[in-house]
Amino acid sequence: MGRRKVSPNLALDQLVARRQAEGERIVHLGFGESRLPVFPPLADRLAAGTDRNAYGPVVGDAGVRAAVAGYFARRGLPTEAHQVVVAPGSKPLLLALDMVHPGDVLLPQPCWVTYGPQATLAGKRAFGVPIPPECGGVPDPDAMRETIRAARALGHDPRIVVLTSPDNPTGTTAPPEIIRAICAVAEDEDLLLVSDEIYRDIPHDPAMPYLSPAEVVPHRTIVVTGLSKSLALGGWRIGVVRFPEGPGGERMRDDVASVASEIWSTLAGPMQAVAEYAFSEPPEVCAHLRASARLHGTVAKAVYDIVVAAGAQCRPPTGGFYVYPDFAPLRESLARLGVTDGESLQRHLIEELGIAVLAGVHFGDDPRALRFRAATSMLYGRTRGGQWAALRAEDPLKLPHIAEALADIERGFTKLAAG
Amino acid sequence: MGRRKVSPNLALDQLVARRQAEGERIVHLGFGESRLPVFPPLADRLAAGTDRNAYGPVVGDAGVRAAVAGYFARRGLPTEAHQVVVAPGSKPLLLALDMVHPGDVLLPQPCWVTYGPQATLAGKRAFGVPIPPECGGVPDPDAMRETIRAARALGHDPRIVVLTSPDNPTGTTAPPEIIRAICAVAEDEDLLLVSDEIYRDIPHDPAMPYLSPAEVVPHRTIVVTGLSKSLALGGWRIGVVRFPEGPGGERMRDDVASVASEIWSTLAGPMQAVAEYAFSEPPEVCAHLRASARLHGTVAKAVYDIVVAAGAQCRPPTGGFYVYPDFAPLRESLARLGVTDGESLQRHLIEELGIAVLAGVHFGDDPRALRFRAATSMLYGRTRGGQWAALRAEDPLKLPHIAEALADIERGFTKLAAG
Repeated sequence: MGRRKVSPNLALDQLVARRQAEGERIVHLGFGESRLPVFPPLADRLAAGTDRNAYGPVVGDAGVRAAVAGYFARRGLPTEAHQVVVAPGSKPLLLALDMVHPGDVLLPQPCWVTYGPQATLAGKRAFGVPIPPECGGVPDPDAMRETIRAARALGHDPRIVVLTSPDNPTGTTAPPEIIRAICAVAEDEDLLLVSDEIYRDIPHDPAMPYLSPAEVVPHRTIVVTGLSKSLALGGWRIGVVRFPEGPGGERMRDDVASVASEIWSTLAGPMQAVAEYAFSEPPEVCAHLRASARLHGTVAKAVYDIVVAAGAQCRPPTGGFYVYPDFAPLRESLARLGVTDGESLQRHLIEELGIAVLAGVHFGDDPRALRFRAATSMLYGRTRGGQWAALRAEDPLKLPHIAEALADIERGFTKLAAG
Repeated sequence: MGRRKVSPNLALDQLVARRQAEGERIVHLGFGESRLPVFPPLADRLAAGTDRNAYGPVVGDAGVRAAVAGYFARRGLPTEAHQVVVAPGSKPLLLALDMVHPGDVLLPQPCWVTYGPQATLAGKRAFGVPIPPECGGVPDPDAMRETIRAARALGHDPRIVVLTSPDNPTGTTAPPEIIRAICAVAEDEDLLLVSDEIYRDIPHDPAMPYLSPAEVVPHRTIVVTGLSKSLALGGWRIGVVRFPEGPGGERMRDDVASVASEIWSTLAGPMQAVAEYAFSEPPEVCAHLRASARLHGTVAKAVYDIVVAAGAQCRPPTGGFYVYPDFAPLRESLARLGVTDGESLQRHLIEELGIAVLAGVHFGDDPRALRFRAATSMLYGRTRGGQWAALRAEDPLKLPHIAEALADIERGFTKLAAG
């Protein structure tokens, strides 16, 4: 049995924390965390939920399931409480789905670091499908048909597609027409769609159209989300899943509940109290979500402008807090620095320029590609005061600590471009 | 793929809750939960930990790992913080161990409902080995040698043994000489011992000798524990694991951390704050643990007396909060009631006598055996006031709500014995 590795984004985060603690100056864009404080009413709910020390139902209490159902209903997805299961993060739910649904998995290439390893843990094969030019987070529909044909010809059995919109690592949102094209392939090829919508509540422009595949092919779409990204609660571990209405969805929900009962029992009771409040979306939570999304959009755009000015190609970010530039246009000059692929680019950036990013190869991208993910949500400041100031600022780019970090980044990429 | 079931203890708990809500009078002994309130300083720690919303290290923060190391050191197991990993319950840790260590699994028969399904989820075979006459939670050493020989002859590869002491479902503690005998087999046959010590801090007699296999064969023993049972925090989901010192232990720790990073990321930050406090064992926590253990012992003994008086054979409970009687002596008279196996006994008890228990078959025991587990920790009352009174009472058996429930149980078993 080969030695297993820690998920590369978590590993990089630990490395940077160590080097910063040793006094090194590093701009950390390497970790997919929203570095913002806890919205105080959420902390109040956690404290108020301490009495919930009984195990409770595996799928979650009635109250939290009803709140999550309402959340989906307000997004054009009519939902009953019994279609919902809560869990300690969306990660275990995604694994459970892999465990209970038969067949192999199709993944956008690049995609979030964990989908592939989870497929392996569940005894499945994962097939990467290149993303289209318009956006990340979805396989290119034509390439997906091609991959399915080729996989079947080799005796494999692709039956699940994972979509992420807005996307990690590209920070883009799939346009409705692409979602419809994917859904058409799913219908033709009898695929289950797992729609990871954990960045859905971080649109940079609230007016941007959003289409969930669950609106198009509800009977074959599972939606997964959580509070880690939108409410900066990664360390609290709150995830939810919505199953389709009807016997197929019920069966899959029961199967996931069964796996849950053997792996994690239930979401911690006090966290269920938090989730019930957050997913009911009172006005103050909505206002906080809007302010967070505005900040994420502003800073992502600033980093996008810097990398494009340095000569990279890049899809403009539209949701979440990532930028995913491609330095292919600079391949020749970068080669003179010893930078010839994603890994050497990542190494050069952290060691020569003090910028921590995660190379595309960690997201399943072509190892030779000069692409990486910059998590711009790490720029809001290392103190709670700085983070609150960023959230409240009319123009967060003018705050000294953010302006300084952006200047560091600009200097770094200008130097990189100069060769 | 066959339809999966929810873990039977959680399923029974949900059934009883529904029927009680409908107004039925049921004495609920069917669920392995310590029905006690949260010790208030733990709630304070959770509230104080709300600021911990960053992901943090997969294995847990330095503070909580150091506290857990101290906990083990005080129990004769010198431990460094780097040997410790925390998680949302001991359940995911046990699964991860199954996933990273090769080979099949040997389980005491009967044992906790989840070990077997977890082995299956990890793609392993589980072999039940009968428990010795002295106690549950450990395979009979001679029977274990026999099972290993037979399994290998069939081409299987048993390499892991799971021990539970004090035990679920029998409520007994393995005597040191049996632990030594198991360790000798493990040495001879090169087995990994997974010692589930989640009931360790609930000894009915604090002077009772306790030997962890980690004291005998430290290099091949992994210890798993948590706060769900001792501090009645099942719904908070806090578990820990201790790996052996040295390269073998480090490798397994890294492998488990890798699996953790793909399944659950980390224990929620506020829960780590709770764990750091609880595992540091300040005097007030120790006093609360002692009071809890005394209550558990008193009530388990009372139920033991009732079932033995009704004609059952039963190992005297010595730790945790379970009693596991065997009604074999009443087989003939029970047959006249239509009770011929564990399932029909469980059904008769809940439907005719209003007593909810979990039949031995759910713990992997012989389906024909007239055995069940009674979780006596469910008797402390359904209100917080009643539970606090139970904890503080000089003689909890004299409290009206406990005396009444015991009277119901006594009436039920007297009726059962009368046939």
